[in-house]
Amino acid sequence: MLEQLKETVFKANLALPKHGLVTFTWGNVSGIDRERGLVVIKPSGVEYFEMRSRDMVVVDLEGKVVEGELKPSSDTPTHLALYKAFPDIGGIVHTHSTCATSWAQAGKAIPALGTTHADYFYGDIPCTREMTTAEIEGQYELETGKVIVETFRSLELQPLEIPGVLVKSHAPFVWGTDPQNAVHNAVVLEEVARMAWKTFTISADTKQMSKELLDRHFLRKHGKNAYYGQK
Amino acid sequence: MLEQLKETVFKANLALPKHGLVTFTWGNVSGIDRERGLVVIKPSGVEYFEMRSRDMVVVDLEGKVVEGELKPSSDTPTHLALYKAFPDIGGIVHTHSTCATSWAQAGKAIPALGTTHADYFYGDIPCTREMTTAEIEGQYELETGKVIVETFRSLELQPLEIPGVLVKSHAPFVWGTDPQNAVHNAVVLEEVARMAWKTFTISADTKQMSKELLDRHFLRKHGKNAYYGQK
Amino acid sequence: MLEQLKETVFKANLALPKHGLVTFTWGNVSGIDRERGLVVIKPSGVEYFEMRSRDMVVVDLEGKVVEGELKPSSDTPTHLALYKAFPDIGGIVHTHSTCATSWAQAGKAIPALGTTHADYFYGDIPCTREMTTAEIEGQYELETGKVIVETFRSLELQPLEIPGVLVKSHAPFVWGTDPQNAVHNAVVLEEVARMAWKTFTISADTKQMSKELLDRHFLRKHGKNAYYGQK
Amino acid sequence: MLEQLKETVFKANLALPKHGLVTFTWGNVSGIDRERGLVVIKPSGVEYFEMRSRDMVVVDLEGKVVEGELKPSSDTPTHLALYKAFPDIGGIVHTHSTCATSWAQAGKAIPALGTTHADYFYGDIPCTREMTTAEIEGQYELETGKVIVETFRSLELQPLEIPGVLVKSHAPFVWGTDPQNAVHNAVVLEEVARMAWKTFTISADTKQMSKELLDRHFLRKHGKNAYYGQK
Repeated sequence: MLEQLKETVFKANLALPKHGLVTFTWGNVSGIDRERGLVVIKPSGVEYFEMRSRDMVVVDLEGKVVEGELKPSSDTPTHLALYKAFPDIGGIVHTHSTCATSWAQAGKAIPALGTTHADYFYGDIPCTREMTTAEIEGQYELETGKVIVETFRSLELQPLEIPGVLVKSHAPFVWGTDPQNAVHNAVVLEEVARMAWKTFTISADTKQMSKELLDRHFLRKHGKNAYYGQK
Repeated sequence: MLEQLKETVFKANLALPKHGLVTFTWGNVSGIDRERGLVVIKPSGVEYFEMRSRDMVVVDLEGKVVEGELKPSSDTPTHLALYKAFPDIGGIVHTHSTCATSWAQAGKAIPALGTTHADYFYGDIPCTREMTTAEIEGQYELETGKVIVETFRSLELQPLEIPGVLVKSHAPFVWGTDPQNAVHNAVVLEEVARMAWKTFTISADTKQMSKELLDRHFLRKHGKNAYYGQK
Repeated sequence: MLEQLKETVFKANLALPKHGLVTFTWGNVSGIDRERGLVVIKPSGVEYFEMRSRDMVVVDLEGKVVEGELKPSSDTPTHLALYKAFPDIGGIVHTHSTCATSWAQAGKAIPALGTTHADYFYGDIPCTREMTTAEIEGQYELETGKVIVETFRSLELQPLEIPGVLVKSHAPFVWGTDPQNAVHNAVVLEEVARMAWKTFTISADTKQMSKELLDRHFLRKHGKNAYYGQK
Repeated sequence: MLEQLKETVFKANLALPKHGLVTFTWGNVSGIDRERGLVVIKPSGVEYFEMRSRDMVVVDLEGKVVEGELKPSSDTPTHLALYKAFPDIGGIVHTHSTCATSWAQAGKAIPALGTTHADYFYGDIPCTREMTTAEIEGQYELETGKVIVETFRSLELQPLEIPGVLVKSHAPFVWGTDPQNAVHNAVVLEEVARMAWKTFTISADTKQMSKELLDRHFLRKHGKNAYYGQK
């Protein structure tokens, strides 16, 4: 069942340690088959280098395991909340990559400071509000997803224009059109977070890039007038 | 004698350079056989890549060499003091890993800033007080162990809830249920120290994470209600 | 056509990931044949490890593709503007290398702080002014080249004495006598940017090195009285 | 002639890129045969991976080439000044390693902040004064050696107790009992410089370690009462 998607999700998970985004098992990737309403996700707490394609777990959008002998990632309810709220996304990545997590711990959005950022994120990368005691002590992973969705709704952001978020005191969630694209965006987020950290230690009062430059670079790579690459 | 434990301790020592935690010979791992009251530890000042399993030294809890042709690590009395005071721990790691050592040099505890920390350390990672002249000029390595124990007693900390400490002006000691688990925790400590350093350079007035979130993440991975991984 | 130069440009492009200067496809190298007035450049958005020597694109100085089945780098008009204005340069590199880009995002020139800098750059490495809305919304890549040239003209800098620049809110462009030399200078710029960043976090009021020391080191390696190396 | 020392110096030079201490050709190692008064040093500006043992250059203490077809390192007069002034040293390393060079650019001594430092350097690692115009414009490399010696004389430091120095606005010179030991100390200096940088960004008012702890650690590894390692 969903052999192709399981292989894709498996490979996308292996790409996390390859890109230096995870320590031990601290990360997971999922992908969705929108037609069948099924999600494939990494099993919980399994080492990347012991994992096989067939260990990927298939769950439905309510979190019920449809196929697989292992428990799905404990972050599965967060992934499902995002797939439900953001109908255009096809893959989700969660990591504790060093620099993005440091911004999440600081509780600050990553400002758009340059074209590296603008090529992939069409504005600041937001940080969620602190979760309430009720949210933390309730269905925590589900509530994490809900607070991400709330952040995007209240800031009126489009998920594919800002394909990632920092969860306060926690770490980033990143997404994309498919699992591979989500991993790509997770690599970019970490690099953008590293540059923003260094930029502010060079000059504490650095301002955001101009709106015109942000537009130019994002739209150079995205949308109907894109002209980057071989398209 | 203790062939299994010697092999385990040997492999745990080799894991230190593999994880980038040591320069040259600056680190050591030990493990204990609680039933026999014997500790296996790295020999002093030997290169990791020249070392063999049978070079591991067996000492009793008073530090007497029971087996082995080489001298045990000069830090052996620190390890023994910790094994005596903390009956639940089964392995100890000492490194001078870069970021944890920088916090130790700054003489500051690493505050719990996020879930990466909370998944392994149930609160701030303490830094010991400065050692006295008498302690430094006396049985220094033994006194180092005693000041660690004093720190945990005075702060009423449980060793397996906070499996590591910073020794002021020196470096970290980390422990766990066995030598491999201790190395795992040493890797986590270094990553948590790196993130905390970056977090404070992003925002100097970052506050600790909420107690509720700390509870949720630590207890998600530890204790009878844990639900992370395949357990 | 220009097989030799295509091979040189191809290898210079592959040197970028080898030296850790690029993530994904974020960089490009070109080289010029001054006699024929033709430039060889990386194709746009192609992965380094899928690229072949024969994929390099040949363009004339007006940007017309003379040979090659792929689209040239979207930064081609910037390269061409620099080749036209700086007749002594033979190769150009554009990257988003982490530290140099952080200085560009901060909008600050990299001051000459030590001999590592002075061995290759004969003074501060300038940062361009912010581009105007008209420049950004017009022929953006061409205007990027023009603002670099304007920076060098207004500061009265010689391109081979300061073989690189930071484009504000964007990233560095670096050049040299040929593509390989340009890559060499791009590696140096990133290292110099890293050191300058660390230097200012050690001491915020660090001053530039003395003019005498700058002269001594630059002229030790460049010009008719050079005495470094086997010349 | 001096085949053994040439092989030792050759291997010590290759250890520099292996330990991540050099970019391109920015570093050199020499060794001395005290009985014959001859020094073996890396040739100037030659790539590490193209160099052979027989390319090492033999010079006498006045800098005259005694054997070898290549020009010796342009820093040779600095090395010779140190060998003449410091009769106990047997090998010298010069690098532009990132963190040590950043301290040199900041013009600040690296304070003794912890036991990692104290295990190898018996106190702060000094930074030389700024060189005068006459020194820079005269026999610059020789004068660099002289200002290092002046620094050690005026601070009453013993070269084997503080086996390295930062040359202001330039980079470190490090030495040891032989070329291999000098490389070892250069690795330590870079790591100590990295930790000190991070320590001060964690806590800007960090004080030096206690004299008692400095004594304990340095003397644990050096001198007649040393008890570290298998001696």
